[in-house]
Formats: sequence, structure tokens, C-alpha cells
Amino acid sequence: MAEWPAQLPEAVTIVEVGPRDGLQSADANLPTAQKVELIERLVAAGLRHIEATSFVSPRAVPLLADADQVMARVKREPGVRYIALVPNRRGLERAIAAHVDEVTLPISASDGHSRANLRRSTAEVLAQVPELVELAHGHGLRVRGGIATAFGCPYEGVVPVERVLWLTRQLVEAGVDSLTLADTVGMAHPLQVEELVCKVREVLPPGFPLGIHLHDTRGIGLANALAALQAGVTEFDASVGGIGGCPFAPGAPGNISTEGLVYMLEQMGIRTNVDGEAVEEAARWLHGRLKSETDARSQEGYR
Amino acid sequence: MAEWPAQLPEAVTIVEVGPRDGLQSADANLPTAQKVELIERLVAAGLRHIEATSFVSPRAVPLLADADQVMARVKREPGVRYIALVPNRRGLERAIAAHVDEVTLPISASDGHSRANLRRSTAEVLAQVPELVELAHGHGLRVRGGIATAFGCPYEGVVPVERVLWLTRQLVEAGVDSLTLADTVGMAHPLQVEELVCKVREVLPPGFPLGIHLHDTRGIGLANALAALQAGVTEFDASVGGIGGCPFAPGAPGNISTEGLVYMLEQMGIRTNVDGEAVEEAARWLHGRLKSETDARSQEGYR
Repeated sequence: MAEWPAQLPEAVTIVEVGPRDGLQSADANLPTAQKVELIERLVAAGLRHIEATSFVSPRAVPLLADADQVMARVKREPGVRYIALVPNRRGLERAIAAHVDEVTLPISASDGHSRANLRRSTAEVLAQVPELVELAHGHGLRVRGGIATAFGCPYEGVVPVERVLWLTRQLVEAGVDSLTLADTVGMAHPLQVEELVCKVREVLPPGFPLGIHLHDTRGIGLANALAALQAGVTEFDASVGGIGGCPFAPGAPGNISTEGLVYMLEQMGIRTNVDGEAVEEAARWLHGRLKSETDARSQEGYR
Repeated sequence: MAEWPAQLPEAVTIVEVGPRDGLQSADANLPTAQKVELIERLVAAGLRHIEATSFVSPRAVPLLADADQVMARVKREPGVRYIALVPNRRGLERAIAAHVDEVTLPISASDGHSRANLRRSTAEVLAQVPELVELAHGHGLRVRGGIATAFGCPYEGVVPVERVLWLTRQLVEAGVDSLTLADTVGMAHPLQVEELVCKVREVLPPGFPLGIHLHDTRGIGLANALAALQAGVTEFDASVGGIGGCPFAPGAPGNISTEGLVYMLEQMGIRTNVDGEAVEEAARWLHGRLKSETDARSQEGYR
């Protein structure tokens, strides 16, 4: 088991997922221009990996229906990787057309969540992955495999570790460039994080990039991040202001906040190259914008 | 350094400090009957160590001016330790008269906070401790020594580790029954917690009870609790609803929440013997009561 704190990394990568995971389940729909402004503010704060949107069916996720426009309008900063989540071939084709740098392919470890999220079983989704990876790579896009419900499923409860390890092997074989273990609805606890990360690392090729995607149930999100850090994870999803959830996972709390994660890591002497105060400022701006939109909608009688 | 997770304890003690650390700096003053009800709700939730109030000067902490009445009215449950904070001999005498089971003697590692909090230097406070311990023990009261600003001081910044170790030795020599390292204003980070706890344990007699008192700056409170757990701490202060702060430490965030701590520990298989949902219910009740009082006061023009 991991020794602590001897093996902590000198630097980690933070993947900002607020514009995607946060806005897809927000209380209000921001105008496209404000989504673009949010992304640009986050880039200005030093974030170099931004999951900017999701190319999903507008019927499934109406709040991200303007994904193409967002990517067309956002000013691209050199050195920044603009990432989009894509659930299928149609989404990947849109992502390629939108010139994103990287895609997240989500695949649920549990069939229950897979069917709710993508209307197909885990095996059916998995069968498509090799050709999606090939298509993405053919257009120069990096692919990160996102294992949803890795720590538990809102429909099925416990997800066997063997299932996650099997999926890990399959995704590596299919050619993904990195893996992210997602605690989709915030069911993970530190001991489980430590154990699963260690087991997944044992089946991964040496040095294979491993990330984690955490939600913040009852304030334990950053304790889970600490456990992941101790177990060797060096890539962390987080969202500005801790916004987020999952529209197909009832009761999911927000993501761990980018500003809290940056604060913790920097205090520990681990470099993030992110300006935590600028992220906090972006979070305040975002909460203000979301509140204005919510208030406006409720005055218009939409709610 | 500690191995993780091999040496995690099977059970830990939670010291509920909401009625003291929370209510002393709340936005509103609860009626005495509601303070009593809060304590009784927390006991009903399974908490067996309750820092119920503080016997300080009513001029210094007006919100706890009814400490004597609270202790006189609260229904004592067998097996529950009712604890009070006492800053000096006068406070200890009131605590003895009120039949508390245990007292917390606070002493700041930094002179700056010591003078702000108790109007005396650390050495001046320390000089009084042996006779206070003797008096407390003479009346059958257990004494916990609380080292304030152990992880940093709002007035002085960094507090040298040597200073904390010196104070640790002095307090043990003075006869305290347990020690609590307090992150008074929420400046600690996980690496620092791990390091300081390990060093303090090296100078403590084997098996000497060591607790920690954490505040929750930017959501890293439970990550600090996890680091403390890994380093061998088995006694955790926490407050219902995460209320709290320090009236003499500007900008202090609330304590780690009891319900969040219980949730994390129970998920990890570590027994707390506390019903986390009952604590959450008490937190909702408390927030409602505090809001009513605040609203009432602002209508009366007090604010």
C-alpha cells in the first residue's frame, strides 16, 4: 500500500469540468456568450485542461444544446487543451468538426447507469469504443476514457471492483490515452478510493495516465482527492464553484471545487499552475450569472 | 511516517463542540431553552462527548453569558461527558459549581493569539495550568489541554513546530489528561497535519490521548481530518452543521461538521456510535432556530 507522504507528486493536472459537468445540470441556461466568457475566465486563471462542453443530443441535455456555438466562439489559447464529452459517433463527429483537442468517452461500470445515461448496456457501449478511438486519433484528438459509477451506482448500488478492472483492461486495449475513474454520484469514501486506485494501477501499463472525477458528498470530496493523491493519481477533475451533478444520476452533489482543490494542493506544496483566487472570482461571477438567469426565468413563469 | 491504510483505528471519539464553538460566534443568541434542546438532541444522536458551553466572562463572549443556566437545565444522560471550556480559575470554579465532567483549558501556541484571546502571554497562561489541573482533578474533573493556533496564527502567521512541542511537554508535565491540537482559524493543510501530529506523538507518552480541532477552510477540513486519522489521532472535535469560528480570530471559518465527519468515518468502516442522520436533523433544526432569531433581531432594529 502507498506510503504517505513520501511519494506525493511535485505537480498535478487539474481538468476543469465546470463548463460541462456543471452547466449541464445547472438551475438555469446561461446564454452562449456567458458560457464562452466562463471558459475564457478559467483559461485566464491558468487552467490548461478545460472540459468545455458535451456533444450530446439537445433533447437529452438541453442546457448544452449550443455546444457547437460555444466551441466556435471561444477564443483558443495556445497550450490549452479544449476537451468535450462525447457519448457516441455522432457526438465525436461534431467534436471533430468543432476542432476540440481531446474527447472524454464516458462508459459506465454498471449497466443500470449505462442504460439511464446512454440507453445501452456497458458491453454495447464498449463495443463501439475501438472505432471511436480510431476515428478520434485519425483527426489528432486525444481520448480519455471515463469510467462512470466506478465507486457505486445509484441504480445498482455496489459496483464490483472486478467490473472496473475488466473495463480498465478493455479501454486500454481499445487505445484510450488516459483513464479517469468517476465517482459519478458521490458515493466514494477515502479508503475505497485508495483501494480502487491501487488495484486499477496494478492492471494499467506503467506510467499510464490515471485521473479521478469526484463529487462532494457531505464535504468529503477533498478527503477523497487526498486519498487519490496518496495512491498515485495525478490528474483531477474539478469544477469552478463546485457546480455540477449528473442529470441521469438522481441526487448527485456538485463536483469538488477547483478553487478548494487548488488551495489544498498549493498549501501542500504541490504545484497546480492555477491561480486559485482567480478561480474563486470566476465562481462568484458564475453564481451571480446563474442566479440572474434563474430569477429572470421565474419571473417569466417558466418555473 | 505512517502507513496507510493499514493502521486505521476501529473506532474514534467525536467531541461535539457546536454548543460552545458554534454558538459563541453565531449570528444570533439562542434562548437558553434552545441551547439546552440542542445539547439534548446531540446526546440523543449518540454523541457522548459534548463541549456544552464556555465559562468565560459574559463581557468577552456575551452569547454564552447563560453558561451556568444551560448546565443547570440540561438533562444529564448517564455515560455522556459534559465538557466546558474554561480560560482561567474563575471559569474553572464556575465549571466545578455547574458539575461538568471535563474542562478544556485553551492555551495558544502563539503569544499574539494568546493576548487577543486571554489577554496574557502563552507563558503567563501556562504558569497557571498546574494549579488549575490540580483543582479540577480534586473535584473529579478530567482536563483536556487545547493547544490553540497549533497550525498557524492569524496575528503571527507561521507557528514554529518547536513551540508546539515545547507546549506539549509542558502541558503533559502539568498533568492534563489529554491534548487537542487546534487549527483555530483553519490554516492547516493535510501534509502539515500529518507532520505535526507525528512529531507531537513522538514527544507524548505512549498511548497518551491526542485529539484534533479543525476548521473547514475552502472545504479541506475533512481532508485534514483524514490526514490526522492516518497519523494516529483518534479524537476529533466537530460541530453540528459545521457552525463555528473564533470571536478573537478574524476570518475563521466554521468547524468541520459532525455529520460530515460521521459520514466519512462510517463509510470507511470506522465506528463513531453516532447517528449521522440525527445530527443532520439537529443541524437543520439549529439553522432554522438561528435564522428565526436573526430575523427577529433585525426586525427589532438591533442589527
